[in-house]
Amino acid sequence: MPLSEFEIIRQIFQQQKVDRNDVLLGIGDDAAVTKVPEGHELALAMDTLIGGVHFSENMKPADIGYRSLAVNLSDLAAMGAEPAWVTLALTIPESNESWLRAFASGLMSLAAQYNLQLIGGDMTRGALSITVQVHGFLPTKQILVRSGAHPGDSIYITGTLGDAAAGLASWQQTDKSFAWLKQRFTRPVPRIEAGFALRGIATSVIDVSDGLIADLGHILESSNVGAKLKMANLPLSLAICEKFDLEQAREMALSGGDDYELCFTAPSNKQEQISKLVKVCQFVEIGVIEAEPGLRCLLPDGAQYDSVGSGFQHF
Amino acid sequence: MPLSEFEIIRQIFQQQKVDRNDVLLGIGDDAAVTKVPEGHELALAMDTLIGGVHFSENMKPADIGYRSLAVNLSDLAAMGAEPAWVTLALTIPESNESWLRAFASGLMSLAAQYNLQLIGGDMTRGALSITVQVHGFLPTKQILVRSGAHPGDSIYITGTLGDAAAGLASWQQTDKSFAWLKQRFTRPVPRIEAGFALRGIATSVIDVSDGLIADLGHILESSNVGAKLKMANLPLSLAICEKFDLEQAREMALSGGDDYELCFTAPSNKQEQISKLVKVCQFVEIGVIEAEPGLRCLLPDGAQYDSVGSGFQHF
Repeated sequence: MPLSEFEIIRQIFQQQKVDRNDVLLGIGDDAAVTKVPEGHELALAMDTLIGGVHFSENMKPADIGYRSLAVNLSDLAAMGAEPAWVTLALTIPESNESWLRAFASGLMSLAAQYNLQLIGGDMTRGALSITVQVHGFLPTKQILVRSGAHPGDSIYITGTLGDAAAGLASWQQTDKSFAWLKQRFTRPVPRIEAGFALRGIATSVIDVSDGLIADLGHILESSNVGAKLKMANLPLSLAICEKFDLEQAREMALSGGDDYELCFTAPSNKQEQISKLVKVCQFVEIGVIEAEPGLRCLLPDGAQYDSVGSGFQHF
Repeated sequence: MPLSEFEIIRQIFQQQKVDRNDVLLGIGDDAAVTKVPEGHELALAMDTLIGGVHFSENMKPADIGYRSLAVNLSDLAAMGAEPAWVTLALTIPESNESWLRAFASGLMSLAAQYNLQLIGGDMTRGALSITVQVHGFLPTKQILVRSGAHPGDSIYITGTLGDAAAGLASWQQTDKSFAWLKQRFTRPVPRIEAGFALRGIATSVIDVSDGLIADLGHILESSNVGAKLKMANLPLSLAICEKFDLEQAREMALSGGDDYELCFTAPSNKQEQISKLVKVCQFVEIGVIEAEPGLRCLLPDGAQYDSVGSGFQHF
């Protein structure tokens, strides 16, 4: 006999190890009640993942659980916020206990890494869909926005680009040598610590979910500036270079999406502070903000490169 | 040409009249940033409505928008919380501008009544599904929970019961005389002001979404008590009595769900304070909390009544 909604909540989702003292009332009442620490503001981000659209329904349920939370934590990372609480609206076609246990274990394992408590949500029957909302703290007046980039600022990116798109493109490949690329899609690492390190230093930050061109484009539009991208500096992994030719890898790095690295800008006089970010994760300078609107991608020989893609279209 | 995700957000969902000064960053960045006023805690509630499950997809989009928010505000009402911000995860099969405008107008009109600001969310393509999260404030240590009912406490209910179920049962009726009942389903009024009035007075509160028996059952279970329900006191509307026979009306009132009235308990020495609630909305005493577990429904002649239903099963 399948578990009822209330049994699922009690037996699976309430079995969490995280127990924060700023959660006054968690799962099980009409609403959760929490407390934001003094001197802090609250950052909130919500993302939906639809089966068959944002992930393949034959993806491992533990990976689906992990990824649903990771893409949301990535938004907190891009604000420099410290994760605190999560809510989950889970819609599933049927009550499948083993699927639910695996899904919850993937989500909870990532939550535990950041001392993030599941405080509530909803569970409904329908086509597979997962909406997660994360809540984090920001010291007062230390918000990292998209709109602060200035001409002359350097543009940086953490990690490597294109891997998740490459993993997705090789989804049907059974050879284990593709595993690392696939994992970059299924288990993206939210750059939470990088977000902390950028507080008070970066002039703008965004996480790369729709592709570098699309997401850097949001910074440029919000900041009312343009940019020059040095293609030679695009950070590619050994794995992507091994499995794809350079043309493909470059296109994935520019337009691929799903890497959840942070793209950020900072003035040149902050270079020394920026360099300390290396303690947290790899990062490189990939371009410069300019007053002239638009994005110019320069090949190593100085020629302009036109990308064929421009990021994931949600509609 | 259909609107893109970003155009929908900008042209429809960012056109809101509410502009709160505790919202430091609203729609349009990686996360929203807000501030909880000093001396207050934060209540958070999230509910999903699935097309074809929680509402008919041929329901007017403005009603769908209104109802998606109303059922969530009802959870804040049951906590005694003051609504502040809302996030929306909207999944739609296609970008239909007129549907979206109507949906947004229904949601925004209710939001404006409570000075509730839409601060973020997500928009995806898929089977129609709406997840809303509401956020409200509670003065420190004034949480209304489900678990505080004590033997001897009176049980109360606001408004009338069964109307929404009756409206749903008469969905196919074209006669206008059913309109009021249908509206009780499509446009439930969240009992926000009643929630305020119950702060510091009620020992337990829940909103009736799954039916009186099911939801009062949650209070009894959380509080580890039982109850006697005086069936003679069940508040029925004139409309339901006109359209349904008493047997049906009684069953709908007990098990119907979707009325979003507040069921609450309070000790007898608070009767004078409770009576002031009448300034806000109608309410009646419908029973008493007892130490003996279980719910006993007593007919006017003292015989015990066994309801056939026990509330909406989510799975």
